[in-house]
Amino acid sequence: MLDVTINLPERTMTVKAAAGENLLQVLRTAGVKLDTPCNGSGTCGKCRVRLDGGRVERRHRGRREAVSRGELLACTSYVTAPLVVTVPRETLLAEGSVSLEQDSSVFEGRYYRVKKAFETLHGKESHVQAAVLKLAEPTLDDNLSDVDRLGRHLRVDLGRGESVIPLDLARKLPHVLRENNFQVAVVYSRLPDGRVALLDVKAPKAHPGYGIAVDVGTTSVAACLVDLATDKILAEGACANAQSRYGADVINRVIFATRGNGLQLLQDAVVRETINPLIEALCRHCGIGGDEIVLVSVAANTVMTHLLLGIWPDFLRREPYIPALTATDNLTVTAVELGLCVNKNAPVLLAPSVASYVGGDITAGVAAAFLRETEQNSMLIDLGTNGEIVLGNSEFAMTCACSAGPAFEGGEISCGMRAAPGAIEAVAIDGTYTAHLKVIGGQKPAGICGSGLIDLIAELKRTGLIDARGRFRRDVKTDKVVYDSYGVGRYIVAAKERYAIPADIYLTEIDIDNFIRAKAAVYSAACVLLSSLGLDFDDLAEIKVAGGIGNHINIANAVRIGLFPDINPDKFNFIGNSSLTGSYLSLVNKKATDFLKETAQQMTYLELSVYPGYMDEFVSASFIPHTDTDRFPSAAARA
Amino acid sequence: MLDVTINLPERTMTVKAAAGENLLQVLRTAGVKLDTPCNGSGTCGKCRVRLDGGRVERRHRGRREAVSRGELLACTSYVTAPLVVTVPRETLLAEGSVSLEQDSSVFEGRYYRVKKAFETLHGKESHVQAAVLKLAEPTLDDNLSDVDRLGRHLRVDLGRGESVIPLDLARKLPHVLRENNFQVAVVYSRLPDGRVALLDVKAPKAHPGYGIAVDVGTTSVAACLVDLATDKILAEGACANAQSRYGADVINRVIFATRGNGLQLLQDAVVRETINPLIEALCRHCGIGGDEIVLVSVAANTVMTHLLLGIWPDFLRREPYIPALTATDNLTVTAVELGLCVNKNAPVLLAPSVASYVGGDITAGVAAAFLRETEQNSMLIDLGTNGEIVLGNSEFAMTCACSAGPAFEGGEISCGMRAAPGAIEAVAIDGTYTAHLKVIGGQKPAGICGSGLIDLIAELKRTGLIDARGRFRRDVKTDKVVYDSYGVGRYIVAAKERYAIPADIYLTEIDIDNFIRAKAAVYSAACVLLSSLGLDFDDLAEIKVAGGIGNHINIANAVRIGLFPDINPDKFNFIGNSSLTGSYLSLVNKKATDFLKETAQQMTYLELSVYPGYMDEFVSASFIPHTDTDRFPSAAARA
Repeated sequence: MLDVTINLPERTMTVKAAAGENLLQVLRTAGVKLDTPCNGSGTCGKCRVRLDGGRVERRHRGRREAVSRGELLACTSYVTAPLVVTVPRETLLAEGSVSLEQDSSVFEGRYYRVKKAFETLHGKESHVQAAVLKLAEPTLDDNLSDVDRLGRHLRVDLGRGESVIPLDLARKLPHVLRENNFQVAVVYSRLPDGRVALLDVKAPKAHPGYGIAVDVGTTSVAACLVDLATDKILAEGACANAQSRYGADVINRVIFATRGNGLQLLQDAVVRETINPLIEALCRHCGIGGDEIVLVSVAANTVMTHLLLGIWPDFLRREPYIPALTATDNLTVTAVELGLCVNKNAPVLLAPSVASYVGGDITAGVAAAFLRETEQNSMLIDLGTNGEIVLGNSEFAMTCACSAGPAFEGGEISCGMRAAPGAIEAVAIDGTYTAHLKVIGGQKPAGICGSGLIDLIAELKRTGLIDARGRFRRDVKTDKVVYDSYGVGRYIVAAKERYAIPADIYLTEIDIDNFIRAKAAVYSAACVLLSSLGLDFDDLAEIKVAGGIGNHINIANAVRIGLFPDINPDKFNFIGNSSLTGSYLSLVNKKATDFLKETAQQMTYLELSVYPGYMDEFVSASFIPHTDTDRFPSAAARA
Repeated sequence: MLDVTINLPERTMTVKAAAGENLLQVLRTAGVKLDTPCNGSGTCGKCRVRLDGGRVERRHRGRREAVSRGELLACTSYVTAPLVVTVPRETLLAEGSVSLEQDSSVFEGRYYRVKKAFETLHGKESHVQAAVLKLAEPTLDDNLSDVDRLGRHLRVDLGRGESVIPLDLARKLPHVLRENNFQVAVVYSRLPDGRVALLDVKAPKAHPGYGIAVDVGTTSVAACLVDLATDKILAEGACANAQSRYGADVINRVIFATRGNGLQLLQDAVVRETINPLIEALCRHCGIGGDEIVLVSVAANTVMTHLLLGIWPDFLRREPYIPALTATDNLTVTAVELGLCVNKNAPVLLAPSVASYVGGDITAGVAAAFLRETEQNSMLIDLGTNGEIVLGNSEFAMTCACSAGPAFEGGEISCGMRAAPGAIEAVAIDGTYTAHLKVIGGQKPAGICGSGLIDLIAELKRTGLIDARGRFRRDVKTDKVVYDSYGVGRYIVAAKERYAIPADIYLTEIDIDNFIRAKAAVYSAACVLLSSLGLDFDDLAEIKVAGGIGNHINIANAVRIGLFPDINPDKFNFIGNSSLTGSYLSLVNKKATDFLKETAQQMTYLELSVYPGYMDEFVSASFIPHTDTDRFPSAAARA
């Protein structure tokens, strides 16, 4: 075994490695968490470390060479001698810090308005009820057991047959009854046959407790903590999905899941390292105990749903693309089975999926977007790592998915970040090529989120700094664009001196290329979905735009770069994270949960990969705005 | 901290102890498993160790004294200096070795006969069914998820609404379907509303799998592994309840449960150290995997049921003596919740209890004894650590319980043991006071089981070696009785030289006293139960005797010592471990499970501790055979 000394920003450690072992593997085994969006396939260039001593063999594209100094990628390096490597801070995965939504006016505009509208259209029924029961105190003559005594009251007071009492509550019952002189509150839901399923027994306060609505995205996870008595949101938060270190997109995650104990690692990453810390942060913020959360609602794409449940996802990506489950069935899942840090008995409501690549996040989004309540055609575009499009009206709904990558959420962008405090959410570039920034929370800039990227690329194009391919025009002279030793250009968005920040915030040609591929995937998918029904963008009454790209998307700029079609801008409506809104609807209203099931069963799925003409559309859309500029007259008018 | 060096028969270890720490606690913390029936209260004298170096303080009955050499009880000794102690083999808890029933003819006589009789009287319905399903293979057009695909078939082929599929099986499903070309066997039970609850999915073999029937006694645990296709018993086994090291009887266990993490230790002891090794031994013996066990049935007294489920038992022993549950309700328990090493989804059927001291072992026993199927009065006497008596006929059933202690199962008897191979099960004493033995399995004697103790004490009395108080008659001169330095007599049942065994097998006056208290408790309880209804032993058509005391009880000897009443010997019927038989009935027949619930709800419980006259009866019965010898004419005739 060979010694590998690892210098980290805050400490140094030495571990043992076998000769020939992959350096990325050595670092992972040592617990060093790296950002590896391509999951070690040698393509993303993120696992950069510095070799300070020793020698490795670099194996890449069939070539092998000895390397003894300098920067290298851990994933293509193999240990051949004792090593000293330094892992720079930027190579380390940013710890999944939780950001809380500061602007609670968003709750009114985004959630309560939608909730009220849904109730008006579909009615309202709560999942969870609470009641205070006064039990007779036991005597030598009335010596029913605690469980039977409670069961007798549940039968008499709440009716409809024997109730279901979980073992966990039977364990708690003797103490709770006696500490409260046999007057207690019960929290319960109703089974389909009307029987009572007990969720909690506690001190006599007729409050049902709290619920948590979660959106599990491939890149980001967001959640709302909800008071189930009032349906009010007490706090909203978001953080990075810790699974990201095992691959940036769903395909890489699925591949990772099928190797060794990969599935377990991914399940742990999303539950123990992502959702649980998020729930804990929300609970701490609101002074609520995790045990008081008695209902969980989750919306996620199909792969994320499989990984959350610990279900083998490999058949999702093999023809005929069959999910293990779509959650349209009677599979009941409780929090304890997933390891969630809430009340053990809390039911987990899973937003049902349509197909392998159209998940519960989309059925939740359809509900939040009210796509099925109007006779006119509308479109929902969800700008996620998986970009999904739904076209529909009250008569039908059709959907497709494209692999946009994580760019809309700031992933695979050098200085990208989620729409959290510190993110540049809007950009304008002036005549001196200087960027003027709007930063979330008004603080110093820390990175660029999706809405900022749209502005930035539109402005780079408008000011002539980049061409239609997204390359910096070498004939424009400015110190705002610099070129590295490989000749790759980068635009300085925020110079570190000007903003007194640790490092420049910039955008490279590779970043722009990633973003162009994301926007091209979405635009071409929308085109194909429409044309499959003989429709055009002009046939749409409305386009609802969803996604975690930030609260304020500049639609005009999104049209200019060719992400959205050039139609009447009044037809666009940005609805934020519609998956989370739908998850919230399902949490507070059983009618919404049922609506999601119907929606999933009624949606038609169009598989783009086998659809003729999709690749041509994609290639044509891989320009700013498009090869066919006639489609974007307003972009041409302004440029 | 002080060094404590512990010499064990096979090894030596040194651990750290705080000054003033209790020596029993030090040994327990070090993982030394001692037999401590009184749970460290200084009364049973079992935790005897030898002090070979150092000094302890002995604290007992308010006195404190320094001790620096010789034998002492660990529970009354406190560390005051570095120590060297030797723990002799006899102080160590005998490891819970599993004994398998060798004589499978017992299965026919004890189980199948009872099963057939029960079916004839009450009908038969299996808990678990199996069916082979041929699912359509998925295609791009028929792309239902695996769970929905299975659900569709369950609906069509087995009918009655949506089926319930546990997450665990959804995890297994993708592999099982594809490995078997979408032809699989499902194992399922029916919910009360007729829906299918899936228990297993596997290769297409229409066999429902296996079940395990368990009797969890305070001292011993016994189990049968059953083929659910044929109801045949594949193997039966028994072992000591590992909880015994925390106390010999239910009261000491309850006290232990309420201290620190005692409840968790007791739950672990019975599941991980007792039932699981027993199941593993039975599975190994039969070449069956634990995962193939899809149903579990447990009969146990009320305290054992609470401890098995991990439920706080303290209120059982406090007026008004309320159990947390009696399992007559709709509490559903699955194997995974208890940590049993069987199929995770296996339902655990709990024999329902009547009251705090009359448990599921008795309702199971009533079913196995057919007490409620006849118009004539019958009595069931269960000779366990908790001695229970049931009096009844087809019109009524009344029950009471007495604390007999573990003597009937060989507990708290110097050379006592369970009825397992090596146990002396029958004894005759000849004119030279030499004992002639019958040993289970025909091998060398290792100890004395319950039926052997009955014979032995009856023979000691008949031959005049002991008096009516159970004391050795000092006027009888024989080398078969020896006296220790305290003047306590012991009778040598099997001399080590004669049988070439490691040590003498003997019976002391203290052992006899323990046994007399046990038999007195049972006899007086039976008297009081009868007289509470104005009845007499002569009013009984039959007395069924149950218990793990051995397969062959000599009824005449049991009468001679005053354990049983002196009535027509033909009225006695020994039915073995009726709790296990009832547990087996419930496992293979849902009608029996329902019958147990009815029985528990209909039985009337008589609380002896508040019944006037019980103590007088007990004191009168604490002689061999009784103060009132007129009650036992046949004993007088022979003596």
